[in-house]
Amino acid sequence: MDLSKLGEFGLIDIISGRFQAPEGVTGIGDDCAIMPQASGRDTLVSTDMLVEGTHFLMDDISAFRLGWKSAAVNISDIAAMGGKPTATFLSLGLPKGLSAEWMEEFIDGYKAISDRFGCPLLGGDTTSSRDKLCISVTVLGEAPSGHTHRRSDAQVGDLICVTGTLGDSGGGLQVILQGKERGAAEEALIKRHYEPMPRVEEGLALTEAHAMMDISDGIGSDLRHILKASGVGAVVDLRLLPLSAELRDACARHGWDAYEIATGGGEDYELLFTIGPEEEKTLEVPHTVIGRITKEKGLRWEGSSKDYDGYKHF
Amino acid sequence: MDLSKLGEFGLIDIISGRFQAPEGVTGIGDDCAIMPQASGRDTLVSTDMLVEGTHFLMDDISAFRLGWKSAAVNISDIAAMGGKPTATFLSLGLPKGLSAEWMEEFIDGYKAISDRFGCPLLGGDTTSSRDKLCISVTVLGEAPSGHTHRRSDAQVGDLICVTGTLGDSGGGLQVILQGKERGAAEEALIKRHYEPMPRVEEGLALTEAHAMMDISDGIGSDLRHILKASGVGAVVDLRLLPLSAELRDACARHGWDAYEIATGGGEDYELLFTIGPEEEKTLEVPHTVIGRITKEKGLRWEGSSKDYDGYKHF
Repeated sequence: MDLSKLGEFGLIDIISGRFQAPEGVTGIGDDCAIMPQASGRDTLVSTDMLVEGTHFLMDDISAFRLGWKSAAVNISDIAAMGGKPTATFLSLGLPKGLSAEWMEEFIDGYKAISDRFGCPLLGGDTTSSRDKLCISVTVLGEAPSGHTHRRSDAQVGDLICVTGTLGDSGGGLQVILQGKERGAAEEALIKRHYEPMPRVEEGLALTEAHAMMDISDGIGSDLRHILKASGVGAVVDLRLLPLSAELRDACARHGWDAYEIATGGGEDYELLFTIGPEEEKTLEVPHTVIGRITKEKGLRWEGSSKDYDGYKHF
Repeated sequence: MDLSKLGEFGLIDIISGRFQAPEGVTGIGDDCAIMPQASGRDTLVSTDMLVEGTHFLMDDISAFRLGWKSAAVNISDIAAMGGKPTATFLSLGLPKGLSAEWMEEFIDGYKAISDRFGCPLLGGDTTSSRDKLCISVTVLGEAPSGHTHRRSDAQVGDLICVTGTLGDSGGGLQVILQGKERGAAEEALIKRHYEPMPRVEEGLALTEAHAMMDISDGIGSDLRHILKASGVGAVVDLRLLPLSAELRDACARHGWDAYEIATGGGEDYELLFTIGPEEEKTLEVPHTVIGRITKEKGLRWEGSSKDYDGYKHF
């Protein structure tokens, strides 16, 4: 059978079916692996690969932004567990024709976001690639034992919340893919797409949250991971989704459905979390309540007759 | 300036020049990064990328062997520090046309070597690649604080030693590249090339060793890293190099220079270490003394008038 017919999750099943995490260790299936240390702290580990032509187009993204994004999407996985990033490791498969100046700019972008979170680059590998640039980053982080937020921690009655605004990155991607003229709103959306800001401080402060993850595929898809892992359902009110003025503006101009982009456009790297209603009342981290966890399985959208199913729309 | 003109080490300089490891942490430049933990243990981290066309040819290597090798070369970096591997993370950029069966076989090979060292796969990333298969593995390990062996630990008067035999993997590569007929000796060399065995137990047992690293580029090149990092020189007697019967056999048949392959053919993944003469006398780990560390800088070969300079020959 062709591997592409299996899909990403069929592939993960092949791999995870063969490897059992040791007692007390969380392996494949969450934003990070969680490895308890003797010191009462957990080591968190996550890794992401970015491939030219699949994740980015060299013609459009600057070297600085590509470096930034490569580190940011990994750091975001640590934020998603409520951890603090401690180090990254960068491997590069480099095609011919890149300049030393391009490389310096790439590393400058990588360093800008790394410095922002006090998370040094401690190693890696560089090799030549026949055709396409391939970037692989691994990030390590830490959290006090038992203080991490897993996808399986959602409870019936929890409120569903997000930080920041949704769909900006997805809107930026549409501007790029559709070759739209770039006004101030479009440029702002593109910046959100290329220079995402991991919510590390927010993740650390959300000690009362139950389930948590970062939004990489769009809430339509990501929320389903929480529901599946927790064995619960959810109702989300589309009218509550936090949309930026820039996204509304661009959607009005280009005739796009803002809900579709906000639910299905990925790479927001905002935090999606669930929390008890009492705990939510006193939460100091800026956030928006968009729905609640239900005993009844499945994800239902309120506020529109249209079905919003996540990244499959794109 | 074109990046390829910089070379791998020029590129590493661009990167390492921008990142300073925090106090007490060993960053870029050794086999692994070393991150001290509160518990009195060090966390070791290393990462390697393997790209189709650069590191392997899909037509020649089986999926099982490619899976094995991907994990093995990473685990070897932990062995090189005298550490114990604790977990790996695997990212795959997958081109179209791979079958589910191929993937299962790949993971079986990856698992065989992982199980051999009790080192589970705990996470990763899978994505599509436009053209070539790209494999990135990160390995974590641990060692008691201060018990790791750095490249900078060689001392004048040390004996230079290696485990196992040298050049088998390099000989196997020549069989593959030159399309030689594959008799028993050639098959044995190819197996050494495709299924290297990391020297984890040996690395753990070599507590008295000073500098240590695994042989990935050939001792002609790798030993120079130790000499440079330690600020010393070396004399190596070519006549002492441990050569397998299979390599001698294949070299005789194909007219190859066994010394050239043993010093310059990489990917042996044996351990190269230095140790005081007194400590060497009581060493229980099987090894061969091939030379000694000198105050006079540079690497001199004894036993041949020819100059053997490492991987540049290939």
